Amino acid sequence: MENFVFHAPTEIYFGKGQIENLSKILGNYGKNVLLTYGGGSIKKNGLYDKVYEVLKDFNIVELAGVEPNPRIGTVRKGIELCRENNIDVILAVGGGSTIDCSKVVAAGYYYEGDAWDLVKDSSKITKALPLVTVLTLAATGSEMNKGAVISNPETNEKLGTTAKAMAPRASILDPEYTYTLPTIQTAAGTADIMSHVLENYFKVTETAFLQDKISEGILKTCIKYCPIALKEPSNYEARANLMWASSLALNGLCGSGKAGSWTCHPIEHELSAFYDITHGVGLAIVTPRWMRYILSEKTVDKFVDYAVNVWDLEMEEDKFALANKAIDKTERFFAECGIPMNLGKLGIDDSLLEKMSHAVVVHRDLQSAYVPLTEEDVLNILKMCL
Amino acid sequence: MENFVFHAPTEIYFGKGQIENLSKILGNYGKNVLLTYGGGSIKKNGLYDKVYEVLKDFNIVELAGVEPNPRIGTVRKGIELCRENNIDVILAVGGGSTIDCSKVVAAGYYYEGDAWDLVKDSSKITKALPLVTVLTLAATGSEMNKGAVISNPETNEKLGTTAKAMAPRASILDPEYTYTLPTIQTAAGTADIMSHVLENYFKVTETAFLQDKISEGILKTCIKYCPIALKEPSNYEARANLMWASSLALNGLCGSGKAGSWTCHPIEHELSAFYDITHGVGLAIVTPRWMRYILSEKTVDKFVDYAVNVWDLEMEEDKFALANKAIDKTERFFAECGIPMNLGKLGIDDSLLEKMSHAVVVHRDLQSAYVPLTEEDVLNILKMCL
Repeated sequence: MENFVFHAPTEIYFGKGQIENLSKILGNYGKNVLLTYGGGSIKKNGLYDKVYEVLKDFNIVELAGVEPNPRIGTVRKGIELCRENNIDVILAVGGGSTIDCSKVVAAGYYYEGDAWDLVKDSSKITKALPLVTVLTLAATGSEMNKGAVISNPETNEKLGTTAKAMAPRASILDPEYTYTLPTIQTAAGTADIMSHVLENYFKVTETAFLQDKISEGILKTCIKYCPIALKEPSNYEARANLMWASSLALNGLCGSGKAGSWTCHPIEHELSAFYDITHGVGLAIVTPRWMRYILSEKTVDKFVDYAVNVWDLEMEEDKFALANKAIDKTERFFAECGIPMNLGKLGIDDSLLEKMSHAVVVHRDLQSAYVPLTEEDVLNILKMCL
Repeated sequence: MENFVFHAPTEIYFGKGQIENLSKILGNYGKNVLLTYGGGSIKKNGLYDKVYEVLKDFNIVELAGVEPNPRIGTVRKGIELCRENNIDVILAVGGGSTIDCSKVVAAGYYYEGDAWDLVKDSSKITKALPLVTVLTLAATGSEMNKGAVISNPETNEKLGTTAKAMAPRASILDPEYTYTLPTIQTAAGTADIMSHVLENYFKVTETAFLQDKISEGILKTCIKYCPIALKEPSNYEARANLMWASSLALNGLCGSGKAGSWTCHPIEHELSAFYDITHGVGLAIVTPRWMRYILSEKTVDKFVDYAVNVWDLEMEEDKFALANKAIDKTERFFAECGIPMNLGKLGIDDSLLEKMSHAVVVHRDLQSAYVPLTEEDVLNILKMCL
């Protein structure tokens, strides 16, 4: 096991009706609140009204319309609103995009230069406004970690940034808020959770047994409950297990003590940066192809673990056959959840594959990945996704 | 899944050489340090000297000789030392006993009445001195939670108390510090970890699938690595996995979202209160007997999960036979780790069993346990342990 620092200080209020604690939580920081949210689904499902009801004693300013793959322009707008209105605390109500955007707004409030600097260089983040979140989508894990991913459409860049100061102080996780999600969002969110786990499960460090057992448990949870949530959107048990899985998949539990960089996320980030596709859909498409590409004598034993411990496949003599069955299962699972499993289905052809492959290796070091990849490797994987 | 609040804010510095960060960590709080430790094993293994070396710029006052099953008298002594020396931060170097004692010292510093009040009624704890720990034994999980257990030999009471303010600010977990443990401590510590998980695994709530998967992963980690650590005390991989298992077993991951009280801990606390035995040894003796006692048509399915998912036993038609095999495995595992598996071997006869059984139901509500138990039930279980 590698050395690590683990710190997940966010206080989680999990379950039905936890929104009733919101006024008490925000009251710790002040009365002036920046409320951030996305496209307005919270107006349809009543959450928006509920927030105003429990915060009737607060002064609320809104940053509405945070986009999926949140943009640096929206971050800049949020920072201005905070400064103009002496904001004490930011309340993000939404999924990972709204939360990520709010994190960089919170940090940008204390930074004199342009906010994009904070995305390019996280060491510039030293302080942030307190952030509280109300989660409406089980996916990114942003509700319980210190990372954020922001897109810059001018430069076709989608980059991650990380700082302790950006971790939410508290997050309200009420699984009922996910009942009204479009099915594709439930499926794509689950693919995102699974990818966070898989990126850490397949790493060079082989001695973090406990972390891998936790990873297998989170994957089994997604495999069990995503199909149930798709069939019965108001199944509380399914929604609750998926929601808590989202937070635990990326709060450090799976990755601490394991060395090396991720692979599918860097590849998908370029797909999203160039085509603005749903992050979880991109991950579902890339992941099984990447698995097939890196399967080798060196990696096959880990895939055997994956087959037996995650997919409950029976051990068999031909390790490669077993590994391929697990990869087939992965691909079929995403397809059966309703995710379009080819780039072509998203209207993406081969015209920008080389440009994206180049951008991957410019933005991220894939030499320390589980299986080191060159630009040509990335191109080959992207071609498999067409 | 039941509603819950999860908060594990302790920053964990895990791995070889993390002690080098100690001065930076303590420096956040001040220069006057109360160093607490137990019987002096840290003097033998060099850790004591190392602490003084890295803290050469600090003023250190010592509370030495914290006993296993730490006593309220020692807590009172610690509080006095803090007040006399204007202590800014407490540094606990040791296992759960030293850390638990230090937690109540930290809280008692701000409390005007007698410290035993804080053990009897945790609502009296509102504030505490900052606490930092250096862990030397994988067992109680106290390094990453807000609980403490203190004994009062005058009243034969051993009681737990819990408060947010008592959670360590940071904990250094260097697995190498456990290389020199006596084998019985490694074994008893593992039994303690496993008991923390089992108390939560066997609960009335059946819909916390994710928590149960994490629990199974921690149990498998203990089962795999404790025998290795006993055979090869300096096996880093084994020590690292056990140490991280200790923290994750009782930081809320396994129990959040599951309703009801524990059973084996309340019973064992009376054994320790009356006979001052090693906590983990008592738990190893009680746990399999309790399992046999509560096995019924109502509980057998959970024991089947336990058999298949934790002990890798093959599913079979006779569920009770399978459940009993898992219980046999549990008992044999502790025995093979070198734990004396009968109270008689610890010099405990039947003379105080009734008194202890009565004390259990006075101190703890066992009506909300996985299987509700009366005083007579507890007596029956204790008789099985003789």
